[in-house]
Amino acid sequence: MGELRWHPLLGQWVVVASHRQERTYKPPAEFCPLCPTRDPAHPTEIPDEDWDIAVFENRFPSFVETPPPPQVAGTALSPVAPAQGICEVVVYSPDHDRTLAEQSVEHIRKLVEVWAHRYEELGRRPFVRYVMIFENRGEAVGVTLHHPHGQIYAFPFVPPIPQQELAHAREHHERTGRCLLCDVLAEERAAAAASAPGGDRRPGRIVVENDDFVVFVPFFARFPYETMLLPRRHVGSLLELGDAERWHLAEALKGILARYDALFGLRMPYMMVMHQAPMDRPVGGYPECHFHIEFLPIQRAPSKLKYLAGSESGAGTFITDATPEEMARQLRRAGERLGGVGGVAR
Amino acid sequence: MGELRWHPLLGQWVVVASHRQERTYKPPAEFCPLCPTRDPAHPTEIPDEDWDIAVFENRFPSFVETPPPPQVAGTALSPVAPAQGICEVVVYSPDHDRTLAEQSVEHIRKLVEVWAHRYEELGRRPFVRYVMIFENRGEAVGVTLHHPHGQIYAFPFVPPIPQQELAHAREHHERTGRCLLCDVLAEERAAAAASAPGGDRRPGRIVVENDDFVVFVPFFARFPYETMLLPRRHVGSLLELGDAERWHLAEALKGILARYDALFGLRMPYMMVMHQAPMDRPVGGYPECHFHIEFLPIQRAPSKLKYLAGSESGAGTFITDATPEEMARQLRRAGERLGGVGGVAR
Repeated sequence: MGELRWHPLLGQWVVVASHRQERTYKPPAEFCPLCPTRDPAHPTEIPDEDWDIAVFENRFPSFVETPPPPQVAGTALSPVAPAQGICEVVVYSPDHDRTLAEQSVEHIRKLVEVWAHRYEELGRRPFVRYVMIFENRGEAVGVTLHHPHGQIYAFPFVPPIPQQELAHAREHHERTGRCLLCDVLAEERAAAAASAPGGDRRPGRIVVENDDFVVFVPFFARFPYETMLLPRRHVGSLLELGDAERWHLAEALKGILARYDALFGLRMPYMMVMHQAPMDRPVGGYPECHFHIEFLPIQRAPSKLKYLAGSESGAGTFITDATPEEMARQLRRAGERLGGVGGVAR
Repeated sequence: MGELRWHPLLGQWVVVASHRQERTYKPPAEFCPLCPTRDPAHPTEIPDEDWDIAVFENRFPSFVETPPPPQVAGTALSPVAPAQGICEVVVYSPDHDRTLAEQSVEHIRKLVEVWAHRYEELGRRPFVRYVMIFENRGEAVGVTLHHPHGQIYAFPFVPPIPQQELAHAREHHERTGRCLLCDVLAEERAAAAASAPGGDRRPGRIVVENDDFVVFVPFFARFPYETMLLPRRHVGSLLELGDAERWHLAEALKGILARYDALFGLRMPYMMVMHQAPMDRPVGGYPECHFHIEFLPIQRAPSKLKYLAGSESGAGTFITDATPEEMARQLRRAGERLGGVGGVAR
């Protein structure tokens, strides 16, 4: 039902998954496959009512554990490979309407545990090279099931974007002996400290911070209101976080997600993408890798979306319509209206 | 009003163009800035009524010829640079409703001349490294002005996607002495010739072909119904095409664009992106570069769009919902209904 095909011009795998064309598409709420089964005549994906967070294999997966052999022969320029991997769905709660931002910190803390467990568990499979935990949120991002949920893709290769990030981090590490993202964070903190006080009481691009995490609009943001969530401590994945850090991660997550929804008074469409170390070495085996979560919203104004058109999709160059400094200022204002949930920039 | 900021994790420039937030957004037809000026009380961008194709500088450009110095100081990790370049708009005709697919071959032939002229003219500026001719078509791609038009970006750097393509083409050229896209085309032709005849009278992934051009769905397509238009002869840009080839290019262009609109009976939203040699060497200076046009549609079914969500935008890995072979078959069927406009697969 699919295979990987090599793109010889771009040097990357493309996943052909033709069975996904027929995936469940925006069913009405009463037929939601992600709600708990309440009536045995209408079974859902989750045959139980008593749970906090549910994880199961995607019924329309891009990768499967035992894929059929490729349906086509590869060529000299374009080899093919089985689409071996695992795709999971993470249903955030039984509540069909409650988004991640609206969950309690206690609930998000449980989700952090689930993520760490799945990252470790999936990463242990010998055919898995990279585990990506992510969420597509909102119809504008292409969500076809409205019940709040995230996804996990266990890839049989390190995908291009994490691969590029790791390559640049490795180069920096070899050259300086330091972690690239530790240095980015130091620059962000210096920029915040150095800004002249004035109209804006909390300067710089930092939006949320607590004892263990900082969320900021990167100086080099590509998406509108893009933020990056970083642990202050240099760790490669969720697995290296202690109990207090996991609580602070839950708090910082709620902090930034609540600001997104408050920014325009609408549920912000975004992609949330977790970057952790590849899984082919033991914990700590990628010293250049600094765990982080990227939030990539696509709403550039209350009634305008950002599209990835010719420049972005055709050339690979992103154009932003606002400065990162202005984006951060607006997100901080939204945070003030919320009473500083999750921690304010210090 | 903007600058380039270096993304140290991805190793690429991001363009900050905050003045673009206020660009003209879906004006009603009577206020279309791309129509000829008909009433001096309502001047448009084009103060003349008697023209075939109009080219002028974008009023909301991402790059300008004499940019102000960057508004912010760069850092050690993220240097900044002036956003120096040129952005032009190419209005395909005075007709507010006639799309490129609906123009005559004669008219498209004139457009080929305009493109070649602008590519050469812009490429001659010392600060221009790469000229990208493209079209964003359809509201679903983010078009904010409906009058059919294309764009030209004269970049001060080679953007990431052409850069990757050139790097892989160069590697192939050094290793084999041959052009990568010539070899891709040979594989496509071999696949078409080798397919068993059967239900489908025209096998392979070739959709349109004439004496000088071939349009096919690449074996490694990333977008729904993606096609690549290639000259049979190895040339690096429009400038190397002779008169007969330019006519055949116009014909092949009309052929594929007409098929896209016929496929679902709607104006297919797409990006059209022209890949030519960078402009820092004389004509022929990039022997590894084979001129081609990529068509990247985003409609995967009559009422469903393809979104570039978590896997594509977050990981950089594309997942397609149909096989390239099936996409090609459907596009050929659409071509049959049109009487084979532009040339059929032979």
